[in-house]
Amino acid sequence: MQILDRINKPSDLKALNKGELEHLAQQIREAIIERVGAIGGHLGPNLGVVEMTIALHYVFNSPIDKIVYDISHQCYPHKMLTGRKEAFTNLEKYKTVTGFTAPEESEHDFFTIGHTSTSISLACGLAKARDIKGDNENIIAVIGDGSLSGGQAYEGLNNAAASGKNIIIVVNDNDMSIAENHGGLYQNLAKLRETRGKAENNFFKALGLDYYYIEEGNDVEALIDGFSKVKDIDHPVVVHVHTTKGKGYQEAEENKESFHWSQPFNLENKATLTNGMPIETYHTIVGDYLLEKAKQDPKVVAITAGTPGSVAVNRVRKELSEQYIDVGIAEEHAVALISGMASQGTKPVFSVLSSFIQRTYDQLSQDLAINHNPAVLLVFGGGITGSGVTHLGNFDIPLISKIPNIIYLAPTNKEELKAMMEWGIDQTQWPVAIRVPSMPVVETGKVIEADFSKLNVYEKTIDGSEVAIVGLGSFYHLGQQVQETLKVEKGIKATLINPRFITGVDKALLNNLIKDHKLIITLEDGALDGGFGEMITRFYGDKDIKVLNFGATKEFTDNVPLEELKERYHLTPELIVSDIIKVLGQ
Amino acid sequence: MQILDRINKPSDLKALNKGELEHLAQQIREAIIERVGAIGGHLGPNLGVVEMTIALHYVFNSPIDKIVYDISHQCYPHKMLTGRKEAFTNLEKYKTVTGFTAPEESEHDFFTIGHTSTSISLACGLAKARDIKGDNENIIAVIGDGSLSGGQAYEGLNNAAASGKNIIIVVNDNDMSIAENHGGLYQNLAKLRETRGKAENNFFKALGLDYYYIEEGNDVEALIDGFSKVKDIDHPVVVHVHTTKGKGYQEAEENKESFHWSQPFNLENKATLTNGMPIETYHTIVGDYLLEKAKQDPKVVAITAGTPGSVAVNRVRKELSEQYIDVGIAEEHAVALISGMASQGTKPVFSVLSSFIQRTYDQLSQDLAINHNPAVLLVFGGGITGSGVTHLGNFDIPLISKIPNIIYLAPTNKEELKAMMEWGIDQTQWPVAIRVPSMPVVETGKVIEADFSKLNVYEKTIDGSEVAIVGLGSFYHLGQQVQETLKVEKGIKATLINPRFITGVDKALLNNLIKDHKLIITLEDGALDGGFGEMITRFYGDKDIKVLNFGATKEFTDNVPLEELKERYHLTPELIVSDIIKVLGQ
Repeated sequence: MQILDRINKPSDLKALNKGELEHLAQQIREAIIERVGAIGGHLGPNLGVVEMTIALHYVFNSPIDKIVYDISHQCYPHKMLTGRKEAFTNLEKYKTVTGFTAPEESEHDFFTIGHTSTSISLACGLAKARDIKGDNENIIAVIGDGSLSGGQAYEGLNNAAASGKNIIIVVNDNDMSIAENHGGLYQNLAKLRETRGKAENNFFKALGLDYYYIEEGNDVEALIDGFSKVKDIDHPVVVHVHTTKGKGYQEAEENKESFHWSQPFNLENKATLTNGMPIETYHTIVGDYLLEKAKQDPKVVAITAGTPGSVAVNRVRKELSEQYIDVGIAEEHAVALISGMASQGTKPVFSVLSSFIQRTYDQLSQDLAINHNPAVLLVFGGGITGSGVTHLGNFDIPLISKIPNIIYLAPTNKEELKAMMEWGIDQTQWPVAIRVPSMPVVETGKVIEADFSKLNVYEKTIDGSEVAIVGLGSFYHLGQQVQETLKVEKGIKATLINPRFITGVDKALLNNLIKDHKLIITLEDGALDGGFGEMITRFYGDKDIKVLNFGATKEFTDNVPLEELKERYHLTPELIVSDIIKVLGQ
Repeated sequence: MQILDRINKPSDLKALNKGELEHLAQQIREAIIERVGAIGGHLGPNLGVVEMTIALHYVFNSPIDKIVYDISHQCYPHKMLTGRKEAFTNLEKYKTVTGFTAPEESEHDFFTIGHTSTSISLACGLAKARDIKGDNENIIAVIGDGSLSGGQAYEGLNNAAASGKNIIIVVNDNDMSIAENHGGLYQNLAKLRETRGKAENNFFKALGLDYYYIEEGNDVEALIDGFSKVKDIDHPVVVHVHTTKGKGYQEAEENKESFHWSQPFNLENKATLTNGMPIETYHTIVGDYLLEKAKQDPKVVAITAGTPGSVAVNRVRKELSEQYIDVGIAEEHAVALISGMASQGTKPVFSVLSSFIQRTYDQLSQDLAINHNPAVLLVFGGGITGSGVTHLGNFDIPLISKIPNIIYLAPTNKEELKAMMEWGIDQTQWPVAIRVPSMPVVETGKVIEADFSKLNVYEKTIDGSEVAIVGLGSFYHLGQQVQETLKVEKGIKATLINPRFITGVDKALLNNLIKDHKLIITLEDGALDGGFGEMITRFYGDKDIKVLNFGATKEFTDNVPLEELKERYHLTPELIVSDIIKVLGQ
């Protein structure tokens, strides 16, 4: 009988002996590998913390004692030990849990988390609440070494130290972020590992924190011993644990970056199961372009905040390391850095995911936009998706485009994307952001004649009447479908417009529409509230014309299938045409 | 003859001997005290760095060597030494320079800065640009100990260390933030001061940075000696300088917090010259309320990010220290902290300035809103002002109100403000933000009957026709004036509405307006783009009614007088009525 079968709650662990705990670790590991092989997911981070998680639940009493997992992409073993093992052992139930901690799933999860470096701050909140209520449980934050590159983690350490009360910060040190680590801290962690925690100038002690070191971070017994020493401690403490990312799956141990998050793969021959991928994507177009541009111009530098593989800078990283900077998970630093670089005539390009640009609003506004420095941002992953709630791409337009001075562009095809990158990088006047489309590549073969330095000039691609469709970025193609449907089904030849500029209104063009149009519709691949469409609607507010905005409702969605969202938000040609006809009263 | 008279550029310093440099320091100090006495400004920070600034410009060659001042509220001596001394010595020219570094004023200023903790990141950008261009100047960041509490400063240190190239980080350690420092780092700085830089577990060395200590931080000779040692260094280095905040002005040395930024004061009797202040302000109302509420309910905790005096938590700070947390200049930590606290049934209230809430968008979205924890934010200083560009209050509505799940409320008077605070703190369902009005107190004496848990219920205060005025928060009163002007001058009895909720539409009420109104106007004290008004306009986009939105244009303004902005944005009753009449065609 599998030992895992006997574990339905953390307290069931306490009856196991050392050998059984080790067997349990093996069973958990096998289940994780099988599940990730089948449906994809975070592999390396979870394999590295199997023993640590067992030991935490063996020593502490969750949910009275409260464990917060930073970014929580290492929570699979935790879920398996807290009543959710079937989601890892039963193929049919794989999708019953998310890949992140989720309070709605279990009383052992305290927060929905998916962004980095927040766990210590959240744990400080739990600890302060405990102290106010006069309780005495343990509060534990589990944070990876990669997550320590984010400034908020430091703010958390600094404040935890000042609290003077029980907070146990477990540093899961596998010597990797998603990619390799960058930053002065990491030589300190390396020295601490080399000296078994005895190096001088201990970063954690410097911040006033007590400190323990555990070398055998994948040995259950050593971990139980270590955690037992800090249980019920009366002051803040760091337990620095040396683990092996991908532990127990050779491919993941050897290729830590590839297996941080993995596509489904074949357990027999290890081949990933995604061979049907198109050869050219907007991702490869950006990657190829950036490498070529950087080769031609040594002033071009590609910057990432810890996610080079997701934002198309891997080719520059591998071939032109002097023109590549990975700042760690430190988006705030990245934006101020590029402002400084651009102020001196170099050409920094910060490539970043929509969900993570949220981490640096103030620097976009203060350091970049107020200072008017001509750096470039490439925003990936913007758009409505069926993703988990912590990684939505709906909010970059409201966030970026309401900051004065930044020019935010929305290309609709390969040629435009390349022309906009070329203009953005070479111009010296504006901070420029470009929303890389999240869709299959559209190639027109046409030369882009536009001079983007003439701001807010929209392109009218079909000249019609009665209805005008303003289709932003990737939704320009939805606009084409709507235009076609209106023509074929309703006999209306609608005007079609590619606005190109998210951040401004083409007043002349929009004014010209009034005389022979009754209705303008806007289409945008993101949230309506604070979006592009509202700007257009305000422009027309006092004029004799109606406007309908299509996009996402202001809400957080969590793994809702995209097709369902398209129905919900009326983002299919049929639903849009139906809404148009209602307004026209035809 | 004053030595200062001979200093028109930094290189003029190099001809001075030690005695002359000390005299110069004295003259600079006197000028600063006199100017701040006359027109107000940052006093303590500037008095503390007079000698440091002289030494920096004596040793380095600005603007070839580049000095970046963190937050830059210590830049007065720098301005006096770089061609702008008359703005400090000549009463009539006081207003010719801003209180922060400003590239448009001088080639010795590299960035417009006013928010904290960004200098090292910006300096890293200058350094990388230097390296790409093959130049070899020194790059210097000057950062106060208080600013080190912000996570971005740590991101900067971590990345500066990794760069391996010349970056000189001068830590101006006066053992104070605006208020006292909070956090584990500060015991480390204290130990370093006590040991003259020799304490074990040196925070800066732990991050891989070289380190020098200067004890005599107000001694020009010691500083010149210290800076000379690191000039042209080939790797990143921290120079930790112990200075005295307020040095040379006894009152400022003794009352460091009060004199961090000072109102104008009388040089003879030291009395501040602002006696005409009204006794009750929205600030005092919040301060009194929070203290009473915290006394009644031990679960209420007031949180500030380093600015207790500006956000009405000083009374709680002084009288109920267990229910008060100053996290340092660490807004990200603050927001995750309150989410954690609220998740456990305590009642955290984070009191913050509009300009600084920008520093924590991601935590508002991820840690607070997605997790739906019922913490309260009190937002001070929101609204259109004549302030400097780095401290505008125009953007909190677009930023906060487009995040799902957060209820953002706009009280219009004392009674509403108190009722909203009471509801927000005691309810357990939503993250709630309240925009404390930036205007003189309006007291109605009326009991607020509204149940704010019924979301998005607007209050119609005058029932009219033809025109409806939706006046948000402090601009409700502007709406009253418009209503009155329309009635008296145009014979139109307009409807007047207090929406109370920034984050939602009262569909029933707005729909009811359609039948007997031709025009809706919205008034908001902030940016139009992504604001409240656009949400209303979108609601009406497909309906037979016109809408005009009044508020600020999307732009950064820098010390433009408020009256001028009101004219520019059409925010006077006369201009608004004129715009209304144009649309009505009457």
